[in-house]
Amino acid sequence: MGPAVEKSKRPRPNAVERLSALLAEDMAAVDAIIHLHMTSPVGVIPNLAAHLIDAGGKRIRPMITLASARLLGGGGDGPRKLAAAVEFIHSATLLHDDVVDVSSMRRGKKSANTIWGNSSSVLVGDFLFARSFNLMVETGDLMVLDILARAASVIAEGEVMQLAAANDAETTRERYMEIVGAKTAALFAAAAKSGAVTAGRPGAEATALETYGRELGLAFQLVDDALDYGGASATMGKNTGDDFREGKVTLPVVIARDAGGAAERAFWRRVVAETRSDDDFHRAVALMKRHNAIERTLETARQHAALAKAALSALPGNAYNEALSEIADFVVERGY
Amino acid sequence: MGPAVEKSKRPRPNAVERLSALLAEDMAAVDAIIHLHMTSPVGVIPNLAAHLIDAGGKRIRPMITLASARLLGGGGDGPRKLAAAVEFIHSATLLHDDVVDVSSMRRGKKSANTIWGNSSSVLVGDFLFARSFNLMVETGDLMVLDILARAASVIAEGEVMQLAAANDAETTRERYMEIVGAKTAALFAAAAKSGAVTAGRPGAEATALETYGRELGLAFQLVDDALDYGGASATMGKNTGDDFREGKVTLPVVIARDAGGAAERAFWRRVVAETRSDDDFHRAVALMKRHNAIERTLETARQHAALAKAALSALPGNAYNEALSEIADFVVERGY
Repeated sequence: MGPAVEKSKRPRPNAVERLSALLAEDMAAVDAIIHLHMTSPVGVIPNLAAHLIDAGGKRIRPMITLASARLLGGGGDGPRKLAAAVEFIHSATLLHDDVVDVSSMRRGKKSANTIWGNSSSVLVGDFLFARSFNLMVETGDLMVLDILARAASVIAEGEVMQLAAANDAETTRERYMEIVGAKTAALFAAAAKSGAVTAGRPGAEATALETYGRELGLAFQLVDDALDYGGASATMGKNTGDDFREGKVTLPVVIARDAGGAAERAFWRRVVAETRSDDDFHRAVALMKRHNAIERTLETARQHAALAKAALSALPGNAYNEALSEIADFVVERGY
Repeated sequence: MGPAVEKSKRPRPNAVERLSALLAEDMAAVDAIIHLHMTSPVGVIPNLAAHLIDAGGKRIRPMITLASARLLGGGGDGPRKLAAAVEFIHSATLLHDDVVDVSSMRRGKKSANTIWGNSSSVLVGDFLFARSFNLMVETGDLMVLDILARAASVIAEGEVMQLAAANDAETTRERYMEIVGAKTAALFAAAAKSGAVTAGRPGAEATALETYGRELGLAFQLVDDALDYGGASATMGKNTGDDFREGKVTLPVVIARDAGGAAERAFWRRVVAETRSDDDFHRAVALMKRHNAIERTLETARQHAALAKAALSALPGNAYNEALSEIADFVVERGY
């Protein structure tokens, strides 16, 4: 009776849990579609895919698709297949990301590439990506295919941009936001917009939801970046320091670097482009504190979340609208 | 004036050159579509993609799409975009293949992963794959999307099967043919079938062309396998021995292994699953000669080529039909 125990410990569910409850029936159907479409007689494929997909991701992207459709009166098989397709694109991206970043952990477990090797992760990622298009074809909606195929190529562009910017200590704030817009926000935007399209509302409402998704995606990634340095509470846990160890320039780094004098800039240049120790990480966190870099990153995230919520205000007010609005708050609250 | 010089050296063009001449206008348009759709503000993407795509591949898959459409009276923008999409899927597969196989050469040049690294090859492959779906969406034809999305997931399954069979000395003939059917023949089949669909002939004619493509793809791969051991002439050149060095079990290996006694089987077990030297390669070629393994592989290829040609006999007789039939002969002749 896991959920009951969980409930007694935490009387008020968070916004993701509330959205999940609101979409419980849809999400059960999406889960079934996901598992049906990741089957294959080639055993490695379902095993590797299940390792990632069943590892307890929050399924926030497919829920955005479903809530966007429901908000506008849509529902049924189309949005569910589309939501599964969105989760597949996300999963394929994670598999390839972990190969590119040489990541050994994902969602608190060993990453798929650690267990099955890089080659399997690349190929199963390709399989999931192809299956996402199978699912979209099943919806019979060319506009949805257009939105998600475009998003997929923008995501790949964002990943390549990020790779080119890796260990580049001169990465600007503008460049960084461009990367986040492509690698993260594009899929959130497409997930929301395509949900509206499956509800038969491809016009202004789809555009409003696209804006919601894009702004939410930007906020989401910036909070992730802040959390990698412990967030506002600067609590260092097992999930902190990954970006630092990879020499990634994220917004907290950009802010601290640009606010510092020559000595600090030299420090950032070295730790991004050359060598990094544990002591360096602690110094990085200290410099961020000095310049309020985490607070300022979270403030930027809050602004994007506010734009996400503003985009919802032009849309029908209902439980789905409210839930999506709460998600925007939740995404920022995670950082504190 | 390269082509003129080429012509004077070789008075009779081969079947690929004749098909290429027949489709010259279409292929010029396809080339323009390919280059337009591989542009990106992210410089690595067009550079890496051009390195592969402009390296002088024969473009046999997109030509099959175009010829299939023309054979049935189709033409224009749809088949051209589709042909470009087919070449993009093929190119994405090659980029990921070279990462999986740790290949350092491709089409006589350094492979993209050797120059730009595995990560860039994975991500640019993803980009080309996404762009192939953009192009298919532009055709506005859901049936074409369905055919190629299915093919893409079958190809990924075939690649994973091949990876699982790598260094497995017990790989059976049936298993091997299944892998070839998925990793190679599925795209040939989809290229031909979808060409028919863009010509507005989704029924029996599309099925006949699908059979043509599948059988041609099987023949093509088997001849490739034979050429890796020097083909019928057993001429060892710079393009031989790759499969052997990777411990790949291909049809020539299966045939020689199954025809040999215990000592020979032990040899094959070791060289596939454990260690391989240059001397081992020469012994492998000698064992293949003893059992006519190359001849028997090419004979199997010839049978598949004959089935490909037979499938064409139910279709309208015209220059395109004839050219496709000649391609089937050409594919087998390469082995001699």
